[in-house]
Amino acid sequence: MNCLDYRRMIVLTDGRLGPLTSKTAYSVIRYRPDDVVAVLDPQHAGQRLEDVMGWGEDIPIVASVEEALPLEPDSLLLGIAPVGGQLPDAWRRHIGSAIERGMGIISGLHVMLRDDEALAGLAREHGAELLDLRDPGPFDRVADGRAADLPVKRVLTIGTDCAIGKMVTALELTAAARRAGWDAAFVATGQTGIMIEGWGIAVDRVISDFAAGAAEWLCEQVADRQIAFIEGQGSITHPGYSGVSLSLLHGACPDALIICHQPGRTHHHGIEKTAASLTEHISLCEQLANTRHPCRVCGVALYTGDLSDADARAAIDATADQTSLPVADTVRFGCDPLIDALRQSLDLP
Amino acid sequence: MNCLDYRRMIVLTDGRLGPLTSKTAYSVIRYRPDDVVAVLDPQHAGQRLEDVMGWGEDIPIVASVEEALPLEPDSLLLGIAPVGGQLPDAWRRHIGSAIERGMGIISGLHVMLRDDEALAGLAREHGAELLDLRDPGPFDRVADGRAADLPVKRVLTIGTDCAIGKMVTALELTAAARRAGWDAAFVATGQTGIMIEGWGIAVDRVISDFAAGAAEWLCEQVADRQIAFIEGQGSITHPGYSGVSLSLLHGACPDALIICHQPGRTHHHGIEKTAASLTEHISLCEQLANTRHPCRVCGVALYTGDLSDADARAAIDATADQTSLPVADTVRFGCDPLIDALRQSLDLP
Repeated sequence: MNCLDYRRMIVLTDGRLGPLTSKTAYSVIRYRPDDVVAVLDPQHAGQRLEDVMGWGEDIPIVASVEEALPLEPDSLLLGIAPVGGQLPDAWRRHIGSAIERGMGIISGLHVMLRDDEALAGLAREHGAELLDLRDPGPFDRVADGRAADLPVKRVLTIGTDCAIGKMVTALELTAAARRAGWDAAFVATGQTGIMIEGWGIAVDRVISDFAAGAAEWLCEQVADRQIAFIEGQGSITHPGYSGVSLSLLHGACPDALIICHQPGRTHHHGIEKTAASLTEHISLCEQLANTRHPCRVCGVALYTGDLSDADARAAIDATADQTSLPVADTVRFGCDPLIDALRQSLDLP
Repeated sequence: MNCLDYRRMIVLTDGRLGPLTSKTAYSVIRYRPDDVVAVLDPQHAGQRLEDVMGWGEDIPIVASVEEALPLEPDSLLLGIAPVGGQLPDAWRRHIGSAIERGMGIISGLHVMLRDDEALAGLAREHGAELLDLRDPGPFDRVADGRAADLPVKRVLTIGTDCAIGKMVTALELTAAARRAGWDAAFVATGQTGIMIEGWGIAVDRVISDFAAGAAEWLCEQVADRQIAFIEGQGSITHPGYSGVSLSLLHGACPDALIICHQPGRTHHHGIEKTAASLTEHISLCEQLANTRHPCRVCGVALYTGDLSDADARAAIDATADQTSLPVADTVRFGCDPLIDALRQSLDLP
């Protein structure tokens, strides 16, 4: 089944429920609220989602798969990633309980559930499906820059760091573009995006020789749309992930970039050395993109979730002054400045 | 066995023997001439290697594995890559003949010989080893920039395109550095480099999330050497391979770059759009490298193999004028200008 066919999901967060500690859970609850029947988090069980997350849907937090059974769940979605590569024992128990009830298991982990003999055997026994959404399959295409010639306008969200709003910005812009009357597609390049959109490729899991080829292929799938918002990954200056970021930039050959940033974030997550500034990122990304296809950074998407309204407005104004670009927090204040900029830059109605 | 333990290799080129059409064969013959007993190329069988390649060792060209048997070969090395991903039937016959005689098969192909049921079965039957040198194994490390703090001076060879001399330049510089009295290491990042050096990781085959981590790990293996020459891959502007190039740049955190170029090459191999210029590449690579670690392009390695001596000298002078950098064809005229530049820039004796 496609992961969108599961419409009564339990989302596992196992003690890490929160806007910054369970990125996948947060996004799935935000963008598929009607398909989530419960959050599984023993540490927060019984609390209201809004009290833990800062916003909320009317979705109960439970302590076990058993407790959620009256809600008739059809699947368990792993909403967090383990520290290190291995599945914690507690997760195994939850996953096992779900499998024994025939529920599908939706995973975006690097470790493939189907390679886990115990879980795979249990799933066969109970006719439960294991969906390893991060697995790109045997993908072996080398990009040659042909995405530049596709009729669809390609907008890539890039960022100054990981976990800074690239997927959310692409989703919000897609929705806003549709409201503007454009035939817009969202292109998922990571496991959470795939959980929300139902298709895509986790480009960071593709063999590096073929990562740009994956981006190129994804763009071809939306070639006949008016505009596509392609979810970026990592950052062009991140020591671990910059290769993935550049593969997307050169595979997708975007016509426009929207850069995602958080005011005051001066370091990549977990990295000691100061990261390049927002303006340095803008300059570098434009130079790199233009080696393949004419492209401009058309706006900045700021994450201001940790600021007061007044501070958020001030940060937006300061960033606009600094970059001479339209700036928006798309979740908090809407997408209008960015949609207007794209309309002008891409000559859209 | 390590691929260096095979000292009586047949190198398969199967009709494609030539300096530009069989890059792996060319380099293995050049850097391990004493370990090659024959070249297998039915189309050129009986000719002298020098007449086909432009330079030569006293190595016979044969039409079949059988014909080479009097030379007591211990292995067959695949010196070319197939067009498309599949093994041509003619290669299968040659490989099968070698396996039936217990010879090791040394491969750098994306397709893994051990996954080929027919060949794997035959190898088990005859006790022959299949070496899939491009397989990085289950590598899953994310780089965090720590290579910047290693004591070894790290020199990365980068390029304006594929197949433009990055590996050869790193090998020639390593040899020249040793002659200069430095404790120098060559770091192989591709299958041909591994065939020559006996260890390394084919970074283009690593999952893209972990490609920079592979570069970082490789640098740690030579941490106690005085200087390491790290073989670059692809080009920072190549539509298919730029992600691999940037992963090496940010994973290795080089102290110095040597950029490889061919005069008159204005396009990436097989790509329609004009490539960025040499000076644009220098600027981009320096900017990207410096987001992680202080680094300069210290010289240019030109490939002038297709030019007369006079034209080669003129191209070197013109490139020096254009870039204000030391320029050398390391194979043709030696490494002195680049070694002098590195001595000064890296404060070496």
